[in-house]
Amino acid sequence: MAEYRAMRSQYTLLDICRQPELAAQVTLQPVDRIDVDAAILFSDLLLPLEPLGIPFDFVKGEGPAIDKPIRTAADVAHLRRFEPREALSYVLSTIRLVRRDLENRVPLIGFAGAPFTLASYAIEGGPSSNYTKTKALMYGEPKVWHTLCDTFASVVAEYLRAQVEAGVQALQVFDSWVGALNPDDYREFAMPHTKHVLDAASSTGVPVIHFGTSTSTLLEIMAEAGGDVIGADWRIPLDEAWDKIGHDRAIQGNLDPTLLLGPIDRMLEGAADVLRRAAGRPGHIFNLGHGILPETPVENVQALARFVHG
Amino acid sequence: MAEYRAMRSQYTLLDICRQPELAAQVTLQPVDRIDVDAAILFSDLLLPLEPLGIPFDFVKGEGPAIDKPIRTAADVAHLRRFEPREALSYVLSTIRLVRRDLENRVPLIGFAGAPFTLASYAIEGGPSSNYTKTKALMYGEPKVWHTLCDTFASVVAEYLRAQVEAGVQALQVFDSWVGALNPDDYREFAMPHTKHVLDAASSTGVPVIHFGTSTSTLLEIMAEAGGDVIGADWRIPLDEAWDKIGHDRAIQGNLDPTLLLGPIDRMLEGAADVLRRAAGRPGHIFNLGHGILPETPVENVQALARFVHG
Repeated sequence: MAEYRAMRSQYTLLDICRQPELAAQVTLQPVDRIDVDAAILFSDLLLPLEPLGIPFDFVKGEGPAIDKPIRTAADVAHLRRFEPREALSYVLSTIRLVRRDLENRVPLIGFAGAPFTLASYAIEGGPSSNYTKTKALMYGEPKVWHTLCDTFASVVAEYLRAQVEAGVQALQVFDSWVGALNPDDYREFAMPHTKHVLDAASSTGVPVIHFGTSTSTLLEIMAEAGGDVIGADWRIPLDEAWDKIGHDRAIQGNLDPTLLLGPIDRMLEGAADVLRRAAGRPGHIFNLGHGILPETPVENVQALARFVHG
Repeated sequence: MAEYRAMRSQYTLLDICRQPELAAQVTLQPVDRIDVDAAILFSDLLLPLEPLGIPFDFVKGEGPAIDKPIRTAADVAHLRRFEPREALSYVLSTIRLVRRDLENRVPLIGFAGAPFTLASYAIEGGPSSNYTKTKALMYGEPKVWHTLCDTFASVVAEYLRAQVEAGVQALQVFDSWVGALNPDDYREFAMPHTKHVLDAASSTGVPVIHFGTSTSTLLEIMAEAGGDVIGADWRIPLDEAWDKIGHDRAIQGNLDPTLLLGPIDRMLEGAADVLRRAAGRPGHIFNLGHGILPETPVENVQALARFVHG
């Protein structure tokens, strides 16, 4: 969005996250321009890393870069558990500002990263294609792995509770990169920690969305781990995903975000296919199968929202 | 392998590919050190791009980089179909040298990239995480897309025939990145071109392996496209993958390559799980679920080969 790019010409991503007035403004931009049914907090998955003692920055064109990645038991032992109501108070201020400005037009979704996904950033030091260092630690030093993920889970659980206290009306837990694991490894290394986070999120009473990508073979176990809603990416047809998740659970998804870059007709055919597979069953949240791509034309998103509402 | 790294300190990857004596030597290195049941040609998926008119190089730490990526109908129209027996004669010379040196100790596998995977490199200009430019062309200009993939398919089909004439005893078709597509898009945009290549490969009479990653929801259609053997990555348990492929077909896979970086016990547990799921049924080729990682200790691969043979 031009509004967002104008702001980014003056401020970094982290500047915006840390200044509640700016973050609130960005949160509201899509609500004002696109006929969406909810707002999602403008924030970043990695914000809890800094107060834990893992400073990072965003490198233009390359994503997050962590100065000193976590590699050893000593690195994990040095992490500082923290009180999110203090260390991340700026996020909570953003939530209060957004709720005031939204005036209940649409609900506000808060979010955080799941332990596996946070651990993969902390260990690799940034984005990864093979997660070699993450898995080498996971397989090689399972105790260190579990201590690290338990630390993330405790901090994230409290952070999500604080977001609900501040006013978010739903929570999304992003386990974006967990699709790198096979089902047995998911169950052993990721699920206990994600369950810890999801249980805490559910205890607040707001609906909880549990999201991942490349999870075609993990959906049943993700549903077992928790969440009122399970997210599915576009690799699996929505009806097949829903069969795996169970029809007692809601589903979010799952249009390929790249369809929003091409001709509108083709995009709407894809959306119609998702809706046909949802078959009007209650509990489908129409969404993309992963985050929206920076090069997406706003008018395509507007056309998509109109089509889905229609 | 130290032998390979020593050679790479003197020659680039492309130098080695283009000098049959060197490429043959590298092809034989793992056969001599590890108790493998086949040799696979040392070569690169992208070699056919240059004679097509798409020059590229390898940038240290970043993978392939294409000077002028393919983006338009005009770019596609300028591609030159070529005779692989001339333009890629150095690969065929390598095959003849390897066959002579192998003296039938183990069979030699030749290979090429499938059209979708080659197109993704040609369009993105290098490795990609979201394939945005690839899919934007695919959805936005389907005729241009199909012309591009048809060009790749014709050239690759002939290249594989030439490899068999030169002496390879099996062929592997790598559609490494096709898992970025959903099943319907696979059927529309990738399958016809892959089938063209696989049909040509099968017509030579040698066994054909059809490989991809992140293909849990594509395996049935990949089997339909062709191949005597379907490769599966580690994201799907081997028995589930085999059920999808059909028990009349052979399967290759599917240990997570990162298991080879960690403790040997954990690696062998993973291998035992793959073998247990194969259940001794004929037609299982034990392999990793994707390429071996550069940081893998050779002794772990040796231990794995011994274990699987045992």
